[in-house]
This record gives sequence, C-alpha cells and structure tokens, in this order.
Amino acid sequence: MGQKNKILDCTIRDGGLVNNWDFSIEFVQDLYNSLNESGVEYMEIGYKNSPKLLNASEPNPWRFLDDNFLKEIIPEKKFTKLSALVDIGRVDPNDILPREESILDMIRVACYAREVDKGLELVQMFHELGYETTLNIMALSSVPEHQLIKAFEMVKDSPVDVVYIVDSFGSLDPSDIAHQVKKFKEMLPNKQLGIHTHNNMQLAFANTLSALQNGVTFMDSSVYGMGRAAGNCHTELLVSYIQKSNYEIKPVLGFIEKHMLEMRQKWEWGYIIPYMISGVLNEHPRVAMAYRKSDDRDKFVNFYDSVTSPESNVSPSSK
Amino acid sequence: MGQKNKILDCTIRDGGLVNNWDFSIEFVQDLYNSLNESGVEYMEIGYKNSPKLLNASEPNPWRFLDDNFLKEIIPEKKFTKLSALVDIGRVDPNDILPREESILDMIRVACYAREVDKGLELVQMFHELGYETTLNIMALSSVPEHQLIKAFEMVKDSPVDVVYIVDSFGSLDPSDIAHQVKKFKEMLPNKQLGIHTHNNMQLAFANTLSALQNGVTFMDSSVYGMGRAAGNCHTELLVSYIQKSNYEIKPVLGFIEKHMLEMRQKWEWGYIIPYMISGVLNEHPRVAMAYRKSDDRDKFVNFYDSVTSPESNVSPSSK
Repeated sequence: MGQKNKILDCTIRDGGLVNNWDFSIEFVQDLYNSLNESGVEYMEIGYKNSPKLLNASEPNPWRFLDDNFLKEIIPEKKFTKLSALVDIGRVDPNDILPREESILDMIRVACYAREVDKGLELVQMFHELGYETTLNIMALSSVPEHQLIKAFEMVKDSPVDVVYIVDSFGSLDPSDIAHQVKKFKEMLPNKQLGIHTHNNMQLAFANTLSALQNGVTFMDSSVYGMGRAAGNCHTELLVSYIQKSNYEIKPVLGFIEKHMLEMRQKWEWGYIIPYMISGVLNEHPRVAMAYRKSDDRDKFVNFYDSVTSPESNVSPSSK
Repeated sequence: MGQKNKILDCTIRDGGLVNNWDFSIEFVQDLYNSLNESGVEYMEIGYKNSPKLLNASEPNPWRFLDDNFLKEIIPEKKFTKLSALVDIGRVDPNDILPREESILDMIRVACYAREVDKGLELVQMFHELGYETTLNIMALSSVPEHQLIKAFEMVKDSPVDVVYIVDSFGSLDPSDIAHQVKKFKEMLPNKQLGIHTHNNMQLAFANTLSALQNGVTFMDSSVYGMGRAAGNCHTELLVSYIQKSNYEIKPVLGFIEKHMLEMRQKWEWGYIIPYMISGVLNEHPRVAMAYRKSDDRDKFVNFYDSVTSPESNVSPSSK
C-alpha cells in the first residue's frame, strides 16, 4: 500500500441507482467539498449516458451529465478529480467534449466481458479526446474463464489506464478477490487495476482491502455505502483505515452527519436479507430489489424459496 | 474447511449486552429450535455469573442462568449443545453443578491476557466437573506480545479444549487475524482455536473467514449480528456461506423474520459511526455506547474530536 493508491467515490453515480438520482445541488456540492477535504482523489459525479438513447422523458442531471450544468455546480475545481460512467449502447459519443473543454477528467466505461470489444472502442475514443479512461468489467463472478482470457487479449493493446474488477452481485469473498487480482495482474501487467465491490455479504470493505494487498490501486466506494441494493464499500472506512498521508476522516463524517442519515431514512440500501441471499446465490440483485418494493418485503423464507425453487422466475440469463 | 468446524451462536449472551437480556422465553425457545434446525452446533444461552457477586437487585434469567429454570425452558435437548459464559471474579464456582446434572455442555471463561492464570483455575474446575471448556482471551488487539507468550505457556498445560481469539474492539482486519491465528497455532499446537469478532468496521464476517482459512474451528456469531455495540459476525452469513452439509439457512431466516426485525427496531446495534470510529482507534466501545445514549448521538465530528483530543476522557487504561 502507499501513495499510489486512489479512492474513487461513486456516491452520486451508484447511489443514484437507489434514489433515481434525487440529489439536491447542495448535496452534490457538499459532497465534492467533503471529498476534497478528505483527500479523496476522484468523485464520480454521475452517468454521462444519452437521454435520447434511453428515451428519457424527464431531466435527470446526474444521470445525463451536461458540461455546462456541471461548470455551474462546481465553479472551482479543487484537488478531487471528476469522473463519469457510460454504458455501452447508451452513450452518444457526440455528447463528449474534448477534455480541455470539459470539467470531467476521467470517463469510465462499464461493460460485460462479452462486449469488451465495444467497450474498448469507446475507451479509444475518450482516450483520444484526452480523458483518463477505465474499463469496468461487470459481473465478474459469472464470467467464463475463456471469455475473460479473450477480453484480456483485447485490453492489453488498448490505451485504457485502469481495468476494474467489478463484483456486481456482491458474491465474492476476499480469497476470490485475491485470486482474480492475481490473474488480472498476470494477464495485464501494463495496466493499473481497480476494484468495485458490493456489500451483500458485508464483505465490500474486506474485499477492497484484499484487492489492495494484491496490487490494485483504484478503490471505488461510496459515502455511508450508498449504492444499488446492498451498496458499496464505505468511503468513510477507506479514508479512516487506509494509510495515506492525505486522507482525513472528519470532512466525510461531517457529510454523513449532515446528509446521509436523512438520506438513509428516505431510501433503502445496505445489508438487507434478500440482498444477502442474492449475494450468496451469485445472482443479480434485481429480483431482490423488486421484492423489497412488494408487500412481502420482509418475508425472507418465502423469498429464499422463490429464488431457489426449480420453477424460479430468476432465469439463467439474469446471472 | 470441513466437517470439524463449529458455529457457536451467542445471540442471547452477547445480544443481552444490548437489551439487558430482555428476551422473552418464546424468543429463546424459538432461537434454540431454529439453531437446531439450521445445524448450528452450540448456542450460548447466557452468562452464568453470580447475582450476589454482581450485587444484582433484579432477577435476570439469561445473565444469571439457573439450571432448574433452563430445564423448564428447554425440556428436550436436541442437536445443538448449550454453553454459558462466565467472567473472572463474577462467577461463584458453587453455582456450577456437575455436568451430568446440568443442561449445559460447555462453560466458557472470558478473561484478559493478564489474568489467564485465574481463568485457567476456573477452566480446571469446570473441566473436572465434566464440561467442555474454552478460554476466551479478550481485547487481543491491545495485548503486549510478552504477556501473550506468558499466557500461552500456562494455557499449553491446561485441560482447556478451545482457546478463543477475541477481537473485543472490532479493530482487527483479516490480515491481523491471519497473523494472530498463525501465532496461536504455533504456540498452542494441541488446542483447538476459536474466533469471536465484532463488526465495528464491517469486518466481522471477513475476519471469521480469515480465521477459518488459517485453522480456527470454533466460530462465534449471533443472529442478525445482535451483540454489544457494532455486534458480531452474523449467524445467517455463516450458515449460508460456510460449506458444511448440515447447515441450513431457512430456519435462521424464519427466526430473523419473526423476531429480529422487531428487536432491531427496539434496540440498537450494528454498523454505527461512533462504533466504527472506536474500532478504527482500537478503543473499547463503552465511550461510544454512552455517546449513543446522549442527545448528541448523531454528532459524529464532535464524537471524533472528543475521543482523539489530547484531553480526551478515554483514558489509556480503558484500552
């Protein structure tokens, strides 16, 4: 561990999957300032997908980031760099300004292992526009080995700066992470690696520590863990526990005190039994998320039966 | 990992530190039946300390276990064995029946490293009465090495069955646990080892997995994590994740559904910022617990300042 490690806070981006990006401007500004003062290196301020491609009927500033709007929100860039995530097929490359005209420093591309070729086309484009780039390979826990090896072959020759291991289902444990990181390091010796975890089994922080010990340098996290379903590794744990001279816990504590308790009252994420179950079963949390919105939300045995019975609605393709 | 691993559920004992053992008889009976059906090997049904020695003015059946009462509560012993915890100086050896007259199978002795000699005297006595015994060395994260080595010398020659590593402050991470387990194994090759974790930094489950991988066979946990302050490793995570043919998750899920959501509404434990801070600082949670009972309970920055300032009330002796 040491000075080369970097935290990327994705509270707005992944947390937006919890509350449909219902964040006030004050919330986002306070978060930016807190992360700055805490020495967090990157803040992912949302998605830069295309409202047209997603047939969006309503504005959603943190889902469809706009450079002019962002410059109003963050009139003065400080220590913390800004990133945005894009999805394959949902981003319009024409929406992306050259980096010198944008407030964004980094564009991250999320993709499944089977579509890495498409992900790398976007990476190439954003790289040529001057951005730092990452490729976030989702749902790693259910990628067949041969597909991953094919993906590595393509990634090796791309200009991507960081390749992320993404435990989308929160189903990996620290030994699994160590194993994956070693494989990634061996196959991609010229790339930096990143880790993005979910907390279904309360292993998000431990998995991040395991990744770090095995050579990952980029750690995703969110404040108070706010992220889809079980949420992510907690930013406050990283800034208080990881040894790096510029990390300070107090600004993040102040932000939690001011904003996150209320947010957690209003919206649900974290260690919740159906999410734990989907983690253990290595399933996408979408079935559990729908269940939590039903009247049966607290019928855990019933949920377990429904997702493990042979007639389960959880089709193999959702894995 | 394998068939020799054992889970010891301490919901009643450690959870009693949260709610002053305000558990209904139905709760305890339902828990016993659920643990049985889930294949959990041991249930710690309370403390067997002396009401006289603790100057107790009120009855407290799970804090001051009584064999006659227990036999009424659990008229039929099943698969799950029963254990009780005692503290040095708080247990009256005259209260302990010979094992064949008791419903208890195991007596565990909690002690600090500096008083291992006294702990082992009790172990010897309970061993001679026929019980399985454990010695639980508390606050391991702040024991000086020389004191631990002295303790090991005494433990080696005792009849104790299991020696527990207890992360009382929830301040250890999986690497620390691996290091400690290796040391214990090296110094105590003829003893089984146990692990008792706290969840201040959301590492209780990960630390338990780390202990298991390094050779520990007894794992403490509590249902829904109910235990002092940040609570313990969750029983439902162990029975769903640990590979052992007899573990079943559904009975524990049913118990959570029936009892634990309501319990958690009424009483507080788990990942809560002041407990996270005391874990990071390797402090006893008592200051944080008092703070959570004050009007300032959610003023996290203020709490952090108060426990880290040079004039802090947290005296070194509390470490």
